[in-house]
Amino acid sequence: MSAAALIIGAGDATGGAIARRFAREGYATCVTRRSLDKLAPLVAQIEAEGGRAHAFASDARKEEEVVELIERIERDVGPIELMVFNIGANVPESILTETARKYFKVWEMACFGGFLNAREVARRMVARPMPANGHRGTILFTGATASLRGGANFAAFSGAKMALRALAQSMARELGPEGIHVAHVVVDGAIDTEFIRSNFPDRYALKAQDGILNPEHIADTYAMLHRQPRDAWTHELDLRPWSEKF
Amino acid sequence: MSAAALIIGAGDATGGAIARRFAREGYATCVTRRSLDKLAPLVAQIEAEGGRAHAFASDARKEEEVVELIERIERDVGPIELMVFNIGANVPESILTETARKYFKVWEMACFGGFLNAREVARRMVARPMPANGHRGTILFTGATASLRGGANFAAFSGAKMALRALAQSMARELGPEGIHVAHVVVDGAIDTEFIRSNFPDRYALKAQDGILNPEHIADTYAMLHRQPRDAWTHELDLRPWSEKF
Amino acid sequence: MSAAALIIGAGDATGGAIARRFAREGYATCVTRRSLDKLAPLVAQIEAEGGRAHAFASDARKEEEVVELIERIERDVGPIELMVFNIGANVPESILTETARKYFKVWEMACFGGFLNAREVARRMVARPMPANGHRGTILFTGATASLRGGANFAAFSGAKMALRALAQSMARELGPEGIHVAHVVVDGAIDTEFIRSNFPDRYALKAQDGILNPEHIADTYAMLHRQPRDAWTHELDLRPWSEKF
Amino acid sequence: MSAAALIIGAGDATGGAIARRFAREGYATCVTRRSLDKLAPLVAQIEAEGGRAHAFASDARKEEEVVELIERIERDVGPIELMVFNIGANVPESILTETARKYFKVWEMACFGGFLNAREVARRMVARPMPANGHRGTILFTGATASLRGGANFAAFSGAKMALRALAQSMARELGPEGIHVAHVVVDGAIDTEFIRSNFPDRYALKAQDGILNPEHIADTYAMLHRQPRDAWTHELDLRPWSEKF
Repeated sequence: MSAAALIIGAGDATGGAIARRFAREGYATCVTRRSLDKLAPLVAQIEAEGGRAHAFASDARKEEEVVELIERIERDVGPIELMVFNIGANVPESILTETARKYFKVWEMACFGGFLNAREVARRMVARPMPANGHRGTILFTGATASLRGGANFAAFSGAKMALRALAQSMARELGPEGIHVAHVVVDGAIDTEFIRSNFPDRYALKAQDGILNPEHIADTYAMLHRQPRDAWTHELDLRPWSEKF
Repeated sequence: MSAAALIIGAGDATGGAIARRFAREGYATCVTRRSLDKLAPLVAQIEAEGGRAHAFASDARKEEEVVELIERIERDVGPIELMVFNIGANVPESILTETARKYFKVWEMACFGGFLNAREVARRMVARPMPANGHRGTILFTGATASLRGGANFAAFSGAKMALRALAQSMARELGPEGIHVAHVVVDGAIDTEFIRSNFPDRYALKAQDGILNPEHIADTYAMLHRQPRDAWTHELDLRPWSEKF
Repeated sequence: MSAAALIIGAGDATGGAIARRFAREGYATCVTRRSLDKLAPLVAQIEAEGGRAHAFASDARKEEEVVELIERIERDVGPIELMVFNIGANVPESILTETARKYFKVWEMACFGGFLNAREVARRMVARPMPANGHRGTILFTGATASLRGGANFAAFSGAKMALRALAQSMARELGPEGIHVAHVVVDGAIDTEFIRSNFPDRYALKAQDGILNPEHIADTYAMLHRQPRDAWTHELDLRPWSEKF
Repeated sequence: MSAAALIIGAGDATGGAIARRFAREGYATCVTRRSLDKLAPLVAQIEAEGGRAHAFASDARKEEEVVELIERIERDVGPIELMVFNIGANVPESILTETARKYFKVWEMACFGGFLNAREVARRMVARPMPANGHRGTILFTGATASLRGGANFAAFSGAKMALRALAQSMARELGPEGIHVAHVVVDGAIDTEFIRSNFPDRYALKAQDGILNPEHIADTYAMLHRQPRDAWTHELDLRPWSEKF
């Protein structure tokens, strides 16, 4: 049994980099996505780097699956010291043509899943004795530009992301006194992912001049947040390439 | 057939005052809540004041009911020129004990219902010819303190209210150029309602010195927003008693 | 002696429209700018409309002049019930070439003058007996897009406007319980002024389709704010043409 | 000649900790305050820790002194790679009794000095060839709770701090593309300083349970910001003890 780091939504480059980073810091790193087989390369990479990784298929939107996931990790792997919620669902659409089904699904994935996982992890954290340094654990949420403003054609995504930010704020205020560091990272800009490479080649071309975010550098920030002592916790910060308009 | 004003969630003092106000301005005022019989006193009051009112039972969270409601009003009453979404669901709870069911229901009532109704109304508005003054209609959302910050024990409510604010912002940016004025009213303070009178008697006692909001004055603001010409539209404002901390 | 409305910075179209508006509401309207002769046309216009106007030369940045101005109005005209601070100084410049002199002057005009005038007026207001409606007076500040964000090349202007917004917030929190309604109006977009007509003809051409703000409509909003009863005061709102990006 | 780090306002615990931190990272650390003699203990401490320190008397509000300071450092010590502006002036006062002199001085110290120093440093930075990593230098501003809101009795301080935040935003937007990383740190809470110890003993007592900020931990954050690669720059973050209400 050793301290666990749980990355919900480790399917993309960002979640993968965060997972590898915490594995390097010695955590038994637990990674989830809906389908297990797609996690195999990440687990293999972490193990090749000398780390420990555990892959779990878990639908973040299903309460029973989430409850079972957290129970299983705490029983079989170790106490969760860090949780990262990293699921997004950025699909623009006019308000005039947005379907109820998609509006709901975007919220369910990008916000409701965050609520379910963070609540279950927080319940476990507060139940443990307070350590000498007063820091029981860390819960981090990945935000986006849409966490701060509702742009045209982004009613669904910004609705979900603003609600997730509300969750982060509410948990920080309630759980800070319980020794849980809750923080929200606003990633403002394109990330170096396969998705951007395929769909936004012009944007991706900015990579040559550091115009898109390197997931390893995002991961550095998550690791920094987890290291902060409790007298100087950051609740929110932004990450943005030098060239991004804001 | 005459121009219609639609108040979604006319069950409380605020929705009622807004409905009566727009009836006085000559609108065929359509009021909804889940159960029809509770609307009878409001309809009677509007008619006693010389106005026209139509009551509809409609569950704002059910897409089919919403689509049917808007169709029926546009067919039987008249074109909707103003819509107000006024449903809240302010029930504090610790994140540690919040149930998935309640977290979902709060969002469904206070945000998803707003999306469904506003989308249906916007679809009708944009389909009409642009009038000479460039103002096809107005869509107003009732916000709260929780629209701006996620307080401790308010993860569900502030999540729903921040998502509703995102909806208002996104619609304003997309639909302003279509001649639709979208605005968000942050009501920051207790309102003179039966709910406050019964549950927060100390707060209610502030009424004697104007320390709680008079629904008629909230309604004045909604009427003012609807009157604004399109060169000087307000997207967001706050309403707060003089004595309220902020 | 009759109730006075004081418009600091009545030299432009906005200040002029606000002055004329409060004159129509029956106030003895006092208008200021640095040089008296430029106010003559405004005074003539107000009098031609049947109102009362008093012009004062006053440098808003000079404490002695401000103290003397307020004393004189209160002695010779009447108690100031409304004050509007409407001086701007929007001159973009790169931070690399901004001079200390200009950076200081922008702040002095757009912020320090607001502090001096508002403090003097507030001192008079709080010294008067509280009226039955609990509303001793109103102090309004004209803001801008730059009140909310510091754009590139706008360090001086946004610095002054954000500081003015801080003043408005601080005064609202301190003086609300004293019966003084303090509000901040964020004007986001070009206004129909000679300045815009001469310097931004493309922008001015938007006037034909209501794409720039009509000063009369801005004035309507100031009048509305002053009328609000103290149980439902607005502290901040934005005004923006339908076509303005935000 | 070696790379220099310049700490404007190194008289308090925070500025001192930041200076010592950058000295440990190998910078020739230049520290300023109005009076030279009070800097001697800090210089001695840095040298005792094996670092290099240079003390300068400089009134941050005087343009000639600032220009001379930056010239002298660049000539005698080395190119400034990092600048921290760390001067505050937190003195609450009712708006009714605030003097023009103090309102001005608070702005002059906490904002105008930041403008003068940051402009001079930025001019030097942009004149240097762009390095391979695209990062010419870093300019950091220390903010406070008052940077975000204007509390009652804080018109002067929040005005200065909001204006400083506007400066940071404007410089970040203009100078990011020039390879200069500009960031603003919102310190929200009491810091472990002699000032807090003497004047707020109840607050200081929270130190035993990490309820006030350790300057060393603030310095860690400044060092982290300076290390960030340009694809993932933070512009703003907050630092707050776990126990601080927000």
